[in-house]
Amino acid sequence: MKIAVCQINTIIGDIEGNKKKILDYYKKSIAAGADLAVFPELSICGYPPLDLVEKNEFREAIIDASLEIAQQTGEVGILFGTITEDYEDNIGTGIYNSAMLCYDGEIKFVQQKTLIPNYDVFDEVRYFESAKSVDIHKFKGESLGISICEDIWNDADYWKDRLYEKDPVQNLVDKGATLLINISASPYNYGRRTVRYGMLSTLTKDSNLPLAYVSCVGAQTDLIFDGGSLCFNAKGELQLLGKTYEEDFFIFDTEKNYEPLTEFEKSFEEEVHSALVLGLKDYAKKTGFKKALVGLSGGIDSALVTYLAVQAFGPQNVHVLLMPSKYSSEGSITDSKKLIENLGISWNNVSIQPVFDKALEMLSPLFGGLPSDVTEENMQARIRGMYLMSLSNKFGYLLCTTGNKSEMAVGYATLYGDMCGALAVIGDVYKTQVYKLAEFINRDGEIIPREIIEKAPSAELRPDQKDQDSLPPYEVLDKILKLYLEESKEIKEISEIMGDAGLVYKVLRMVDLNEFKRKQAAPVLRVSKKAFGYGRRFPIVQGWRR
Amino acid sequence: MKIAVCQINTIIGDIEGNKKKILDYYKKSIAAGADLAVFPELSICGYPPLDLVEKNEFREAIIDASLEIAQQTGEVGILFGTITEDYEDNIGTGIYNSAMLCYDGEIKFVQQKTLIPNYDVFDEVRYFESAKSVDIHKFKGESLGISICEDIWNDADYWKDRLYEKDPVQNLVDKGATLLINISASPYNYGRRTVRYGMLSTLTKDSNLPLAYVSCVGAQTDLIFDGGSLCFNAKGELQLLGKTYEEDFFIFDTEKNYEPLTEFEKSFEEEVHSALVLGLKDYAKKTGFKKALVGLSGGIDSALVTYLAVQAFGPQNVHVLLMPSKYSSEGSITDSKKLIENLGISWNNVSIQPVFDKALEMLSPLFGGLPSDVTEENMQARIRGMYLMSLSNKFGYLLCTTGNKSEMAVGYATLYGDMCGALAVIGDVYKTQVYKLAEFINRDGEIIPREIIEKAPSAELRPDQKDQDSLPPYEVLDKILKLYLEESKEIKEISEIMGDAGLVYKVLRMVDLNEFKRKQAAPVLRVSKKAFGYGRRFPIVQGWRR
Repeated sequence: MKIAVCQINTIIGDIEGNKKKILDYYKKSIAAGADLAVFPELSICGYPPLDLVEKNEFREAIIDASLEIAQQTGEVGILFGTITEDYEDNIGTGIYNSAMLCYDGEIKFVQQKTLIPNYDVFDEVRYFESAKSVDIHKFKGESLGISICEDIWNDADYWKDRLYEKDPVQNLVDKGATLLINISASPYNYGRRTVRYGMLSTLTKDSNLPLAYVSCVGAQTDLIFDGGSLCFNAKGELQLLGKTYEEDFFIFDTEKNYEPLTEFEKSFEEEVHSALVLGLKDYAKKTGFKKALVGLSGGIDSALVTYLAVQAFGPQNVHVLLMPSKYSSEGSITDSKKLIENLGISWNNVSIQPVFDKALEMLSPLFGGLPSDVTEENMQARIRGMYLMSLSNKFGYLLCTTGNKSEMAVGYATLYGDMCGALAVIGDVYKTQVYKLAEFINRDGEIIPREIIEKAPSAELRPDQKDQDSLPPYEVLDKILKLYLEESKEIKEISEIMGDAGLVYKVLRMVDLNEFKRKQAAPVLRVSKKAFGYGRRFPIVQGWRR
Repeated sequence: MKIAVCQINTIIGDIEGNKKKILDYYKKSIAAGADLAVFPELSICGYPPLDLVEKNEFREAIIDASLEIAQQTGEVGILFGTITEDYEDNIGTGIYNSAMLCYDGEIKFVQQKTLIPNYDVFDEVRYFESAKSVDIHKFKGESLGISICEDIWNDADYWKDRLYEKDPVQNLVDKGATLLINISASPYNYGRRTVRYGMLSTLTKDSNLPLAYVSCVGAQTDLIFDGGSLCFNAKGELQLLGKTYEEDFFIFDTEKNYEPLTEFEKSFEEEVHSALVLGLKDYAKKTGFKKALVGLSGGIDSALVTYLAVQAFGPQNVHVLLMPSKYSSEGSITDSKKLIENLGISWNNVSIQPVFDKALEMLSPLFGGLPSDVTEENMQARIRGMYLMSLSNKFGYLLCTTGNKSEMAVGYATLYGDMCGALAVIGDVYKTQVYKLAEFINRDGEIIPREIIEKAPSAELRPDQKDQDSLPPYEVLDKILKLYLEESKEIKEISEIMGDAGLVYKVLRMVDLNEFKRKQAAPVLRVSKKAFGYGRRFPIVQGWRR
């Protein structure tokens, strides 16, 4: 069978636009001689649609669009992700995340999703019920075994601990499937593709069946979908691999023998760089922003974000603002100007000092002679935030937040100050990873000036301030944070690994206590398996002590 | 049987403190001659513990504390909410939301929760599996039928559409229960108590069994638990009712005939007033804030929030800041001063004009002679935000946000400006309800000055600005919003009701487009059945058009 893998980038909720794109790719599939055109999970409405699913009018529009697609089919099949309903028993939501197979002008078969993920960024039990049954469908000489995303992630041979009791793909195999198809919307994190490959290779080898695993691509606010659709033969060999971080279209001929592929994961730097650029680009494209703005401090975080913005928007559409105070080093300007020159972007330099002085003058009677503290530091960050938002408001720039994951973890950021912005571009990238990305960007020559990479990190909010005055060295901090946030290690284990229980306790307390800041943070582009944001939910007010 | 209803206020995660409180109330129950002391759902760790449940060390601490409680029991029983684990099958989370019954120094019986809510503010499927079985337990001559919160919300006789297939309380009845006990943590919204009463009255009458429904009380960040534990006899008559919005302790003697109670719900104003004061008070108590700060504009929203802060903190602990600009009306100062006098609170008056002028001077070269627009309006709000946060940082005030639900819905608020603050006190109260609360507060004499109530709402960010320049009258706006947000009506239905499809479309678009602002908003105290925040999840980037 010739399967057209249609790895598309949809817009959540844009049912009309998505339907049009699906039909365009269907025509393309016919032209390419395909037997069946396959699209990702929930491609008709984009993934994840969240509470839009609870709206009757939204689901009606989806069902109407699905019917329209069905009516436009001929003998070439189309399989796409949509929503179906069944309220017969008056119990539960009655709503199903479904794969719909259409040909000859009709809906011929619907497979509902069986395994409904409800962890990390997934909330599907909120909306969807589990499939009532799992069946194969005979089409053009093959018995299609169709599954949806999570359905294929519960292979008893591959996983020691399983999330679910059912194994719908095994059911399909048992029912005599000759060809497996999985339509998917699986968010990216670094290392994920290796897991996908390993699991699917085992599954296809064990079941002795070929598989087309069709992914979506594109960013939906904070979630990045990396594409990279995977086609396996019945020996568990990878036959074809979709492009990553962009749309793709290709034919997988299950009768053909392709040269097995073994290279599928790129370096951390290459992957995360592409993922973040896509995240920024899609946020802008899908909301209508044409230009980006970054507050350039002379530090490495804002330099990296500016570079990423240039990749996403083009240099002519990126503007930066330099906002020195009397605490700013000379380098904060000279180094920034070097970066500006390297990138060819526009800029302004506006001191915050006169506004800061005036605000201090107005508030000093209230401060009653108390010594300077974090108040005055935050004021500077907030004046910068106001400057940046003013430019964003006046000219329609997308303001990019520049905080990294290490800072967001320990609360080393000012609410309503440097946290201002629409999108936290590197909020899931640790400081030590920021350096790695900078070196990667400079691999063929200096783009981010060496001075920026080599200076000691500083917020420059008081004389001679350095990050390391109040934080452990970033290599140490990031190691603790990664063990805690991503590896879910307990304080005992982390303390043993780090050999400093007091420091570990202090860092973990900082993480726990700063939930209130993260509640009010911009959405964070997710590139790790546990990012701050939707997939990590802790009470703001809580008394947990270890 | 004599049941001690222990309606306690816990702190999420404070296992030590909660354990101590549970043991104190257990001793009190013994002293009061009880047979069994009953505590709310998850009382050992507070509700909802969210992702804390995913931490092994957190669950271990809970299990240790539960064992300690068990060891301290004598012949008087104790029944409390805790977490239990069962990983035998290696499938699923292996974690259960449970009711634990202890006496004679041992854990004697555990009932796991069967119905796991996963809608609105509930995410329990993320953490908990459904009970493996449901059983009665014989204790002191009674057959106890124990259930947990949601378990009792699926009565086939009461509900037309049900969320779940199982009915664990019916199972308990079928198994011969002689006494029903439900331990609960059910968040407040206005009207909820009437539903609770109706459902439980039907259930006890139909099953011909008495019931003790034991609620928790207190606020956990945004969620408010109203207490009001309910005890029914076997005829479906309400026998005893716990206090609302405070801890309570009383004995329900199932052998005794009490005079049936019929009055259990108070007016909207009385209830919501108490709920908001509790929300503010508990946020402060559980985070350590002793003093509150409000930016007083002369408008009704900030006046109401200031009054609520005085109820929660006492007048000596509330400070307000007046921050006029050249666009401020005379009334913004004089009316505020009248309120300050009525409430007996401290205040400062600091103009934002000099800082605003200085900021405009600095930025005007960048603005390039473009006309004034929302940029300049937002700048003023952001300078005020900086002033308020500076005082909060310097003196440790809890900054209360003053935006109402109508404004938050349509985005009539400035990010990083008037949206600054730790808690959105009236973020779930429509503007028309704000007026109702003000009249309620003034019922025995003027506290909120009439001038404040009667003036036309205005942000005072440009000359002669009125809210109604850009928004429909609040009576109209709020009606549309309520139909859309709380009643989940579709645009067609709302348009028919309102008779103005264009206006309805415009308002709904405003709601949809302002998700990005609400993402970065302070937690909102929830008093309606659909509040902005945790229980309402829409994509920020989306293209849904009606």
